[in-house]
Amino acid sequence: MIENITRPTLLLDKNKCFFNIKKMAKKAKDAGIDFRPHFKTHQSKETANWFRDFGVNKITVSSFDMAAYFANAGWNDILIAFPFNILELARLRELSSKIKISVLIDNSDTLHQLKALENSVHFYIDVDTGYGRTGIPAENTTEIEEVIKTVQSIKNLEFSGFYCHAGHSYKTNNRAEKDKIHQKALQNLNSLKTIFKEHAPKALYGDTPNCSIQTDFSGIDTITPGNFVFYDLFQYSIGSCTEDEITVAMACPVVGKYKRRNEVVMHGGAVHFSKETINIDGKNVFGKRVQQEKNYWKPYPEDIYITSVSQEHGIVKVNSVELEKISIGDILLFVPIHSCLTANLMRSYRTLEGSTITML
Amino acid sequence: MIENITRPTLLLDKNKCFFNIKKMAKKAKDAGIDFRPHFKTHQSKETANWFRDFGVNKITVSSFDMAAYFANAGWNDILIAFPFNILELARLRELSSKIKISVLIDNSDTLHQLKALENSVHFYIDVDTGYGRTGIPAENTTEIEEVIKTVQSIKNLEFSGFYCHAGHSYKTNNRAEKDKIHQKALQNLNSLKTIFKEHAPKALYGDTPNCSIQTDFSGIDTITPGNFVFYDLFQYSIGSCTEDEITVAMACPVVGKYKRRNEVVMHGGAVHFSKETINIDGKNVFGKRVQQEKNYWKPYPEDIYITSVSQEHGIVKVNSVELEKISIGDILLFVPIHSCLTANLMRSYRTLEGSTITML
Repeated sequence: MIENITRPTLLLDKNKCFFNIKKMAKKAKDAGIDFRPHFKTHQSKETANWFRDFGVNKITVSSFDMAAYFANAGWNDILIAFPFNILELARLRELSSKIKISVLIDNSDTLHQLKALENSVHFYIDVDTGYGRTGIPAENTTEIEEVIKTVQSIKNLEFSGFYCHAGHSYKTNNRAEKDKIHQKALQNLNSLKTIFKEHAPKALYGDTPNCSIQTDFSGIDTITPGNFVFYDLFQYSIGSCTEDEITVAMACPVVGKYKRRNEVVMHGGAVHFSKETINIDGKNVFGKRVQQEKNYWKPYPEDIYITSVSQEHGIVKVNSVELEKISIGDILLFVPIHSCLTANLMRSYRTLEGSTITML
Repeated sequence: MIENITRPTLLLDKNKCFFNIKKMAKKAKDAGIDFRPHFKTHQSKETANWFRDFGVNKITVSSFDMAAYFANAGWNDILIAFPFNILELARLRELSSKIKISVLIDNSDTLHQLKALENSVHFYIDVDTGYGRTGIPAENTTEIEEVIKTVQSIKNLEFSGFYCHAGHSYKTNNRAEKDKIHQKALQNLNSLKTIFKEHAPKALYGDTPNCSIQTDFSGIDTITPGNFVFYDLFQYSIGSCTEDEITVAMACPVVGKYKRRNEVVMHGGAVHFSKETINIDGKNVFGKRVQQEKNYWKPYPEDIYITSVSQEHGIVKVNSVELEKISIGDILLFVPIHSCLTANLMRSYRTLEGSTITML
């Protein structure tokens, strides 16, 4: 599993990954709704293909770069879940001449420049149900109506429904608060579907925390989670997954051992893990150790964290018993805090069987 | 300067960059010492060539990947300033057959496996003068002596001197504390040079904060700063540079404008800036706005920060007067907190004249 690894390497447990995809696909199927997974986490056409076995034929991405990459890989129904950037109009024109493209819109400020598109482009109104990042507040139905009207007047720009990313689900691990966030989003989306029923709008919804723990998706037409494909320590910390459902781990060579301060230094730093942290007992940590077995990894019996990173270095704090078990030249495994950022930095990952999966 | 920019783009002001290189090269020359700049920040063979005009012919890097890249680009004297990783032995052998390679060593744990190298490799003892990341504490001369002895017994592994990264200089913006850190490093290195004088060891030293503000390098043979080539908001915050000496800025398209909370959302998030922060008035920020002029940028009259990032989104907090001046579709410029991590994520940068510089 770690044969020939000499430098920081991102490992993927394909079995766990399949399990995560299967579980989420089943959840959508059981709820009788569509599954349009977000591919920003794995960013790989090979991993993308694994979704096809579960009937997935439409996807979500967060940039034109990803849309172009997956369009080239044969995906022909892509939602770019990012506020439409008028400066990318040339790329929108090009992509929409080849495949079905959908974009998010929460204002019509720049769209008056546009009289017509040559090919059909679908748009969803981005609605804000409390996260406060993008979107029109779901209650501002007058504003929503105006934007729909303006944008619909542009030839070939077609209103398809509402999109909601209730990202405030990431900010709590309190179940009651999570349920409140979810129920508010459902109510808002259902209310909008009723108000604008003449357009028969669809409701797209579903970040990884909500899709992982909720089962009631009444009125929702499509879920769009992404991170669940790998999960990570952050998702574990807020209760979206078990520690064992995390499917990626960084393999890092130990290069230093410092008895005087019970620390190990390894090759594996900010350019591998990213600088994303979670707070454990008042301290920011950058990754958590897992136990390597012959053909897989499992939670390590002790809680061991990366406590500091610089560009290439990672410092791991251990007790003196654990320090004794580690030698310079060993490879240690750590699950990352935020798998999207770690994968994005690594640009490829390696399955436990030893094959390399390249990314965008 | 921002013509045709449609997505997050890292801009480089080449004039400022030349100025930073020239200034540091002059400082080394005036002190009568060698200049072996660290190339982990720019990671580009084109930018590397600019150093040649200032007589630079030996460099520092932080990984075998970078060493291989710059060796291919014609650099033939490279120090890998990272604790030597025995798992990379094959790459060490390959590189040392072609160019002069130096490595850092702070223990001999794994080197007993090694009887001989085919080609000469130079090693520096990594000494810790108080930073506490890697290195043998400078006071532990017995341990230092033992490591030198063990490692020197390996054929073709040659002791060249001492290396010190006094990275605790990054942790303070108090001038007296900075001076104390610097003076302690100088004393330690000079003392080691005296104790081990039979080997005529060289002293390599000098992170960007210390090299930027100190002028006394007595006993030091070579300085090895890296970040100064670009600088960044962090270096500015600790007094290493002026705001105007920062040579890179991210150009980001505005995609959303939210009057109800005085915020702008732009394309430019964690996969562009990294998640590095500095704390301003109790809040973590991810970048600071600069003012675009015709052919350059300068500090913006108001302090405007990126206050939150997700994978692709950056949120900018402004007052209502500033909000009025910004339109969706505008390109805003921000200097990053940590230019090394931002450049590493972007993989290329664009000069103000419009040419693209690719990276490793």
